[in-house]
Amino acid sequence: MDITLDHVAELLSKHSHIVITAHIHPDGDSLGSMLGLAGYLSSLGKKIQLLLDDEIPSLYHFLPGIHQIEQPDSQKFKADLLVILDASDIERIGKVRDIVDAPILNIDHHISNTKFADYVFLDSQAAATGEIIFRLLKSLQAAVTTDIAICLYTAIATDCGFFRYANTSSTTMRYCAELIDYGAKPHLISEELEARPLANIINLSKILQSLELFAEGKIAILTVLPEVLDSDDNTEGFINYPRIIEGVEIAVMFKSADQHAWRVSLRSKHVDVSQIALHFGGGGHARAAGCTVNGSLANVKAAVLAVAMKHLQGLSHE
Amino acid sequence: MDITLDHVAELLSKHSHIVITAHIHPDGDSLGSMLGLAGYLSSLGKKIQLLLDDEIPSLYHFLPGIHQIEQPDSQKFKADLLVILDASDIERIGKVRDIVDAPILNIDHHISNTKFADYVFLDSQAAATGEIIFRLLKSLQAAVTTDIAICLYTAIATDCGFFRYANTSSTTMRYCAELIDYGAKPHLISEELEARPLANIINLSKILQSLELFAEGKIAILTVLPEVLDSDDNTEGFINYPRIIEGVEIAVMFKSADQHAWRVSLRSKHVDVSQIALHFGGGGHARAAGCTVNGSLANVKAAVLAVAMKHLQGLSHE
Repeated sequence: MDITLDHVAELLSKHSHIVITAHIHPDGDSLGSMLGLAGYLSSLGKKIQLLLDDEIPSLYHFLPGIHQIEQPDSQKFKADLLVILDASDIERIGKVRDIVDAPILNIDHHISNTKFADYVFLDSQAAATGEIIFRLLKSLQAAVTTDIAICLYTAIATDCGFFRYANTSSTTMRYCAELIDYGAKPHLISEELEARPLANIINLSKILQSLELFAEGKIAILTVLPEVLDSDDNTEGFINYPRIIEGVEIAVMFKSADQHAWRVSLRSKHVDVSQIALHFGGGGHARAAGCTVNGSLANVKAAVLAVAMKHLQGLSHE
Repeated sequence: MDITLDHVAELLSKHSHIVITAHIHPDGDSLGSMLGLAGYLSSLGKKIQLLLDDEIPSLYHFLPGIHQIEQPDSQKFKADLLVILDASDIERIGKVRDIVDAPILNIDHHISNTKFADYVFLDSQAAATGEIIFRLLKSLQAAVTTDIAICLYTAIATDCGFFRYANTSSTTMRYCAELIDYGAKPHLISEELEARPLANIINLSKILQSLELFAEGKIAILTVLPEVLDSDDNTEGFINYPRIIEGVEIAVMFKSADQHAWRVSLRSKHVDVSQIALHFGGGGHARAAGCTVNGSLANVKAAVLAVAMKHLQGLSHE
């Protein structure tokens, strides 16, 4: 059932053994929110366990308390409350679902939330789950330590693209101002998050050479061949390079998934690319979507281009 | 003489023909501050002239009112007040200095300000001159239109690297929150500012291929040969790629300046690179500096590397 933030506070206050988890493929928001909430609840003397069914990318190892997060083993156990952060679906927490026997409180900001939990606090207007956690701590007049501030600032800043995405609101900014006053240092946090392995920059230089333009410069394509990714598989953010080119409406990145399949990422300025992804059995948002398509690179490229050009025409007729 | 913000307000209020200018090589802060201040003063029915002795990069053409900024001709004229924004030295305003006959009010945030003006309001704690202009408008209880908000948000956001530099304070964030409430849209502004010509992305892919590492990966170098820059001369931001590589302490970019000279840009995480620049007759800040060195690429590279390695050793002995 949907509950208020006061009810969330009440649930957290009355239980003493609380397990906190979040979605697999962890990001800044899920990890920062877990650690921010745990930092506060631990200070009240509660028994807090942080479980996550995935590896934590080294990028986030600077977050204070990160080593308290453990991967679950298969031993089942009981707790007073399982708090699931930033996950819109129970499937997204991996095997934590099967081993913790406790009522579930879900705190999330994804509009696609399936309301799977016993207690749900959903605010799809929040730029990040970290924004909700900070609002909760404020309502509780919690002592926000520098460590908590760093975690929540990271949570919020990463989920709004460092204040560049449309979800950045004046509340997002005001909360981050308060977190700076509590000790978060924006430049130190962004330095940690922007660090890249050498192999990643070398791959970027190789992959940018694959840039091709179609449809009079309205469609830009990057191709990531399997041999490029020998030392570093991380191509996150690479699709932004074709996307920001003047005149480009749709950016596409084809990345070799396995022998006969290509992972297709789509970005746009106005076209609803989720429709293109849907055509190939994928999904996503209007401006950012993806799908996996089987076939040779030439065939996959031709097929995606054809559908993309159709949607581009739809746009120009509007 | 140094004056208070109230005195600034008084000067602006008592004069009716006001010329506003800023430094040449205009950036988001100088242009946004000019337009933000002009927007307010124009609404009071004053005669406001916006002069700038330089071209305005197309990147900033989205700023409301940008076409009101004119390049000065050589005709001298009198005005009540010349307001110089974001310039720490009179030399930086080009020929506007020679053609406007008026007392000078200088509003700036550069610690290196030479106090050249009749009236100086300097706040080196402000992340941007735009921050000072917004404080001024707040103190005057000015009606902040959406257009003014867009200009001042751009001014502040660009000068603090979209909230990623050390000058980002909680005040910076709070002011931007207010500007969002006045109608600035962070995602639309950042979309405009991140757009790049195709040639720029192609150049990036070429220049990244020049990446070289020295000193056990602590020094990373990019080289921009003259033939690369045939269609687009803008390499702004390229030095960030070597800078963000894990383990890199000093990033250097050598860019062909003319037949026999190389423009050297320096960035660092801890080393004071202004000392390296100073050695070659240049200057700058501890983390970002530059110089121009005459000679062949091989000689210039060897000379700069030698000095950089000496400073690197100094660091490890601390």
